[in-house]
Amino acid sequence: MSLDPKTVVTLLHGAGGAYMHNLIKELFLRLYDGYGEVGLNVLDDAAVINGIAFTTDSFTVKPIFFKGGDIGRLSVSGTVNDLAMMGADPIALSLAVVLEEGFPKADLEKIVESIKKTSEEAGVHIVTGDTKVVERGSLDKIIINTSGIGIPSDELKHNISVLRRSREVKYEWLVPMNIRDGDKIIVSGTIGDHAIAILSSREGIEFEINVTSDVAPLNKMMKAVLEVGGVADAKDPTRGGLADLLNDWTEKSGLGIYIKESEIPVKEEVRSAIEFLGLDLLELGNEGKAVLAVSPELARDVLDALHKTSWGKDAAIIGEVRKDIEGVVLETVVGGKRLVTRPVGDPVPRIC
Amino acid sequence: MSLDPKTVVTLLHGAGGAYMHNLIKELFLRLYDGYGEVGLNVLDDAAVINGIAFTTDSFTVKPIFFKGGDIGRLSVSGTVNDLAMMGADPIALSLAVVLEEGFPKADLEKIVESIKKTSEEAGVHIVTGDTKVVERGSLDKIIINTSGIGIPSDELKHNISVLRRSREVKYEWLVPMNIRDGDKIIVSGTIGDHAIAILSSREGIEFEINVTSDVAPLNKMMKAVLEVGGVADAKDPTRGGLADLLNDWTEKSGLGIYIKESEIPVKEEVRSAIEFLGLDLLELGNEGKAVLAVSPELARDVLDALHKTSWGKDAAIIGEVRKDIEGVVLETVVGGKRLVTRPVGDPVPRIC
Repeated sequence: MSLDPKTVVTLLHGAGGAYMHNLIKELFLRLYDGYGEVGLNVLDDAAVINGIAFTTDSFTVKPIFFKGGDIGRLSVSGTVNDLAMMGADPIALSLAVVLEEGFPKADLEKIVESIKKTSEEAGVHIVTGDTKVVERGSLDKIIINTSGIGIPSDELKHNISVLRRSREVKYEWLVPMNIRDGDKIIVSGTIGDHAIAILSSREGIEFEINVTSDVAPLNKMMKAVLEVGGVADAKDPTRGGLADLLNDWTEKSGLGIYIKESEIPVKEEVRSAIEFLGLDLLELGNEGKAVLAVSPELARDVLDALHKTSWGKDAAIIGEVRKDIEGVVLETVVGGKRLVTRPVGDPVPRIC
Repeated sequence: MSLDPKTVVTLLHGAGGAYMHNLIKELFLRLYDGYGEVGLNVLDDAAVINGIAFTTDSFTVKPIFFKGGDIGRLSVSGTVNDLAMMGADPIALSLAVVLEEGFPKADLEKIVESIKKTSEEAGVHIVTGDTKVVERGSLDKIIINTSGIGIPSDELKHNISVLRRSREVKYEWLVPMNIRDGDKIIVSGTIGDHAIAILSSREGIEFEINVTSDVAPLNKMMKAVLEVGGVADAKDPTRGGLADLLNDWTEKSGLGIYIKESEIPVKEEVRSAIEFLGLDLLELGNEGKAVLAVSPELARDVLDALHKTSWGKDAAIIGEVRKDIEGVVLETVVGGKRLVTRPVGDPVPRIC
């Protein structure tokens, strides 16, 4: 790579790993001015201000139509999930579309229909928007930004009150600072489906693989989980995958995390693909999965609740939070141990 | 132009005129589901849901550094102004940046500093963000999306209560449906500065002209105005300029608007430039101006209040709302009359 990441922005900075976190800390965190119940400094899925959860996401996925979804479904799901991972009920989304001159109206119509369908599925309302068009060659087809606002659900309030039985809770939302030693780590389903589906939808990719993206709005699944209670935090493993997410949690909670490779649910086709391509499962992005840190005495009940939902049938406990270790430690299938760090590169760029 | 606007998106669709409105009606309005005190269907500066104003804007301005501003100042001002034009106090903004690989970090730092400075000037907080990077050639440098939320200011409440003395008011916010026959049309300052500054900042432009952009956050100016009361609606004449804005008002209020060309404040340099370039002043975009529809008995007081603010020194009454005419009628400087329609093309593309 001829670009110097010290002086220019590179794809590494968009990879949801170490470089992105450094760029954010170096450049964007200076915008934090102390405001918010959950402020910019927390770098969580959403901020919380005046009792409202607020989040934003721009989508540059390539290709825009892929196995199991499209940029429209992704745009709604991504922002709904950011709100849902705070424990918020998403109420309204904005929709800002930037189009390249020459973009087919028929494709735009398909995307808008997909946005409509996914919004209805999530029960969220698109209330405001913006449209821009740039000259041919100034943009690769389309970029969509959705921002969203949410309010604390009754299920969140119940969950926090249950959580208070096992610990002191400073935040009324799902944040990493609520995580404690002994919490169980649950993933809501199979890992890697989205990244592999995107990869196999790209032109020029040689292998044929039958995996569809998991892209879905998870707010209803999250409500079912919070009805049980005892959830300390939730986060969706998008760019950077499980590896980035778990490192985020260890950094923000100050605790270690121990996970077992053998417990991580993976589709057989995804496993074959990553072995063939030499990819790391833990670094693959997902768009319809949640990772939960749950009070140990309620972990089984939360798992049962997940199994009853549309998107949580393959949920599994994959590990636990441990104060006696540092960072994220993976017990491999052959019984070895390795430290999982934040990803540096991007196994599949532009997955969202 | 070889592109067919019936089947593909063209620059016309991004021009803030007739084509954009048709595209929005044809494709995006199907997302309206009846939700919101001021819903998607109103196509106002912002939506209002659960008592919160919510808006979004993506910025594709070219060049990103221009006379009198940059994409950072524009991104904050644009969204703050959309909220301010509803009568809302902007409280928080999101910031989503999409970068082209190779973008200089030093430029990004300048932009972030400008965002910080402008946010402080407006008294608004950046609370959440997103960063994406796409491959070289997939984007012309940078796109920024800011979305924002605001709450009704005390000044807005006062304004609405004053407005109720002269009419029935259904909406507690500044919307076109509050406009009535006889309301005075006020612009907060000189028109066309931003579009001409952008044009003269572009490479390959042959003329030298000393105009700087008016880009500024107008929320404080708006509070000063609402303290007087009697403001029925406010809107910022961005893409599509005065021509698009006034047509929007006539369509949504069902009333005509009569304006006098001789009363529209214009800088001498801007007038020379548009005469030289053959542009229509009414179609030029602005980023630091508001247009107000004000109850006639309070128009003079509102004007006086504007003159005392930083950005309203050149404010003027340019016309009035009239139920006895249809559409927007301009009385020209030579005393003729012409119908002002929504712009079709874009005199200066990518001004925001």
